[in-house]
This record gives sequence, structure tokens and C-alpha cells, in this order.
Amino acid sequence: MKITELPTPALFLDADTFDRNLAAMAAVHPGAALRPHVKAHKCTALAAAQQAVGHATFTCATPREVVGMGLAGVGTDLLLANETVDAARLRAMADLDVPVTVAVDSTATVDAAAANGITACLIDVNVGLPRCGVAPHEAGHIAELARRAGLEVRGVMGYEGHLMMVTDRAERLAAVERAMELLLEAHADVGGPVVSAGGTGTFDLHDSTGVTEVQAGSYAMMDTHYGQQGMPFEQALFVSGTVISVRDGHAVADVGLKALGMDHGNPSVAGGTVWFCSDEHVTFEPSEGLSVGDRVRVVPAHVDPTMAMHEAIWIVQGDEVVDRWPIDLRHW
Amino acid sequence: MKITELPTPALFLDADTFDRNLAAMAAVHPGAALRPHVKAHKCTALAAAQQAVGHATFTCATPREVVGMGLAGVGTDLLLANETVDAARLRAMADLDVPVTVAVDSTATVDAAAANGITACLIDVNVGLPRCGVAPHEAGHIAELARRAGLEVRGVMGYEGHLMMVTDRAERLAAVERAMELLLEAHADVGGPVVSAGGTGTFDLHDSTGVTEVQAGSYAMMDTHYGQQGMPFEQALFVSGTVISVRDGHAVADVGLKALGMDHGNPSVAGGTVWFCSDEHVTFEPSEGLSVGDRVRVVPAHVDPTMAMHEAIWIVQGDEVVDRWPIDLRHW
Repeated sequence: MKITELPTPALFLDADTFDRNLAAMAAVHPGAALRPHVKAHKCTALAAAQQAVGHATFTCATPREVVGMGLAGVGTDLLLANETVDAARLRAMADLDVPVTVAVDSTATVDAAAANGITACLIDVNVGLPRCGVAPHEAGHIAELARRAGLEVRGVMGYEGHLMMVTDRAERLAAVERAMELLLEAHADVGGPVVSAGGTGTFDLHDSTGVTEVQAGSYAMMDTHYGQQGMPFEQALFVSGTVISVRDGHAVADVGLKALGMDHGNPSVAGGTVWFCSDEHVTFEPSEGLSVGDRVRVVPAHVDPTMAMHEAIWIVQGDEVVDRWPIDLRHW
Repeated sequence: MKITELPTPALFLDADTFDRNLAAMAAVHPGAALRPHVKAHKCTALAAAQQAVGHATFTCATPREVVGMGLAGVGTDLLLANETVDAARLRAMADLDVPVTVAVDSTATVDAAAANGITACLIDVNVGLPRCGVAPHEAGHIAELARRAGLEVRGVMGYEGHLMMVTDRAERLAAVERAMELLLEAHADVGGPVVSAGGTGTFDLHDSTGVTEVQAGSYAMMDTHYGQQGMPFEQALFVSGTVISVRDGHAVADVGLKALGMDHGNPSVAGGTVWFCSDEHVTFEPSEGLSVGDRVRVVPAHVDPTMAMHEAIWIVQGDEVVDRWPIDLRHW
């Protein structure tokens, strides 16, 4: 099947670009030096491709991602880089054949994990992003609680998410190093072999931070937001749309805000300037003549929520559709 | 089951508030004077509740919504208020037992509809929102093309979406009246019994505009964006979240931007001030003490894409969960 035969809106991945992105990351962080973040794609087939280039440890944001990866048999070490006190979900993760580690940052999350069969944890440390995570000086105390509750404490994690979009590289590096000093301060009190941090925006700034593994996800697919950062990853993810209306000065394609993560703003359209998105439309000014029925490529501003809106992603080589991967780790 | 027993994030509808919203709208636009917009909820069970209070004609934004409504047997007259040239989808709509009308605004959309078994159309008119729709003076020509192609031309539709959020009521009314003059100008050339327009934001401004039916959807559930407009509809839709981390000055619940339409900005949290959303988190400043495991109610800024992110909506009376409705018209 040709890409132009797909019913639209159709999420698709350019296979060659995707492979280059995987290779570029694996060259910098081979094997377990990268713990790919499943939340970026929510797709076990895509995770299997990451495993095929050497990464067998994975980061997840939801219990469903962990359980789905475990049941699909992808990954040999799964981390829930998030807190939960949901007994049924903790139990479902603990019942998997694959080892599961969860993040904890409080007595309640430690107790819930221990009470429901979880055996290993990382202490989640706040390194500047006000979300989950204890203050660095409290990390040792939580580790002690966790060990007393019978959990193996494998180390610490901290996500410098507030620094992903610092545009100046030197500034970003300096800020990352300061954030990682906080994480190492916590790690000194916690112990364990793992210091887990990072993301696509800071993937190459951890040479001397003491981090043992980088959690990155977007690098494999990319989006316009990360695309402005001058990284060695290319845009591999697109939404194919059909032009459904052509008017004086603007055209409309059938790729709307229900097919696109909008929290980073409007998407881009190849060969046009986007005016706005509605539920099922993108209105744009085309740079050359378009006709109703023509196809356009829409590039999402934020990859993670875009993937979460689609049932499947089409895998494309050139103009040929070669596969369809279900996005099977959606919802919670 | 109590609402606090739902796994989170859990989308839920307060049944009593929902019923009041349906009654308030039906009092103003009874029966076919309202053509409820299915895109707002994508849920046949919810549409059936709208039908139970007297509305049997429905508006849809996608072929899947039309086909799903038809197969579920909800509605006696379905309108695709959108353009498509997808032959297979047009054929699937034409093959339903229920009468289907589609919007057209070009030769290509007329020809595609006629070639694939569709028998009725509305001429889509641009009344100020630059999206699909012909200029008013071109509407008669498209109607002529449609009749020549064998389609019944039932009238015109035009969506004054650019006016939904004009905050001053008198200003909004004046602008709606100007927009509807354009629609009536088109209708004079097109003919047919239907003049379809409007939305929740302008539902009560069509007394003297000549509009025969109002297309509104959000009114049934509501969101914070429409909630600022002083309308007689109350917030019935919420996402229940679990507090997973409590820190100095902020707390985190498990309702993130993958559970919320973000194109209208951040959600609200009852009893707190929202700082920001991440994929699976909302970080907020609580107005009183919270503990890990507590439940919070998150109110989406935009109802339509929020509904489209969830597999089902829980129906709640007081604190009791009384039903679960699949959101079965998602995707395309």
C-alpha cells in the first residue's frame, strides 16, 4: 500500500529516519546507558525496535505501560519512573515475570509498594522541577524507610525537565550540572548502583554528571519543539492529512487537535503556514497551489501526547507502507 | 462502587448536573431545534440520553461518528458537518439505515458524495471562521452542482466558531446577527428547509437570526472555558485524580495532559491553583492540607478533546458510580 492510500488522519513513522535516530542515540548511550522512555510512544513494537539496537532496560510513566511491556515480553528491567499508591496496579506490576522497579518519594508510596509485592525502588529526587520527588537532603531518610520495608533501593532518579528547552547549550549544560549535583548529593545518602536522569533535550550533557543511565524517549520520533534544539535526531513522525477544502488564501486538511498533542502549540504543515487547529481541521496558508484530495504532512509540536491519541502508527519506507504497529500502551 | 474506588485518572459525569443541562437546553431548543453535536462527547450512550429528551437529529464531525451512531441506532437524521472525499467512508455512511446528510463546499466534495451513494447535502458557508465553507455568493452555484449530481440540497450550514468566546453578550449577539446575514444571503440562493448553525457559546442568540436548528455539544458536559460565559449550564464533567506526592507548597495528582484537552490551556483543580501539567501529572498549590492517596477533582479547559482521550466515562450520582459509558466514537 502507498502512503497516499491510508485513510486520514494517519500517524506514520519514516522507518529510515527512525532507524538513524535509534543508531545516533545508541552511539552515544549504548545498551543500558540509555533507559528508553516508553511514555513517548506507548508502543511495544517500537520498544522492541529499541531493544533490537541494544537497550533492554525501559522507563515507563504509568502502570499500564509497565504491565503492557511485561506481558509483551519486551525489556528485561522495567522502571515505573512515577509514584502510585494503587494497590491493584502495584500488584499487577509485581506479578510480571520481568523485574520491576518503582519510584518512591514518601512513606505512603514506600508502604504501598512494599505491601503489594514490589521488591525494588529508586528514590525520586526533586532536582528543580516542582513535581514528585523529595528534597535531596530527605532522600536518605526515604531510602532507610524503603529498606526497612523490605525494598531493594537501587539508587536515585531525578528529572531535570525544566531544563529541556533552555536554548543556549552552554547555559543548559551548566544548569544540568547544577541539577545533577543535587541528585548526587541525594545519591551519597541513598547508595545503590543507579543514578537515573535526563531526557532527549539533555541527552548529551551527562558525560561528567555522574548519571549512570539517561531516560530519553522523544529522540526516536522527534517533534517541532525538540527539532529547534539542533540535536542529531531528525523528524521521523508525521500525520498524513487530506486537503478537504481550498479557499482564497487558505486550505484545510483533516488533521485537527484530536490528532495532535497541542500543549506545545500548533503543528507545522510541510508547504504551508498554520493558522489554527480545530477539533478535526488544520487551517493553513499553502505556499503553492493545492487541490481537494491532495495529501499534506503535518508535524506535531509534541510527540508524546500525539502518539497517545492514535490507535496505531503506520511504518513507511519511501512512499510504501510496510507495517502497522498498534499503540497498545495507551490509557492507564 | 464509590467514586473514590475508581482507578485514576477517571473521567466522570455528574448525572444530576448532566440531566439539568439537557433540560435547560431542551427548554430553549426542543426537539429538532437542536441538532446536538456528537463530536463533543463521541459517546453513543450519551447521545441516547440526548435523544431521550427529544433530540433525534445529530451533528457529527467525522465519518466514524456518523457510522457509529448509525450502527448503534441512535438518531433518525445524521449530519456530517464536515467535508470528506474518502470514498470508503462516504460509502459506509451511505450504507446505513438512517438518512445521512453531508456538508459540501466544492465540486470535489459534491462529486465524491454523489459517486459514493450519499443522497443529501447541506451547502457549507463561510460566515467568518476561515475553515471549510464557500463564500456566501458562491453557495448557489455549489447547490446547482449538487442538484445536477443528483443530491437533495436540504439547505445551508455555517459555523460562527470565531464568535463563541466574545465575552460581551451584546457584542456577541450583534456579531452573530451579522454572521447569520451571510448565511441567509447564501440560503436565499440555495433554498431548502434547513439553516443550521450555532454552538454552545451562541445557543441563545438565534431567536431572530433565521436559523432553523442549533448545533451545540459542549453544553451537556461543559468546561472551564465555556464556564466563564455565564450560561445556564453547569460543570458536569470532571477527571478524578489521586494525589501521589505532597511537597512543601505543592502537590501532584495523576491527571496529566494525556488525560486533558490542553488547547484551551491548563485545567482547574477543585481546592487548588494549577501550576502546570506534564504527561501524567498536574502540579498544583492546594488551598488546604492534602495527603498522598487523597482524591481531587480536575476540571478540563476543553471538553471535546478531553472526552476523546478516554476509553469510557463513569456516570456518578452523588458519590456513587451508577454506570460506565464507552466513548465509542473515537478515532476516524
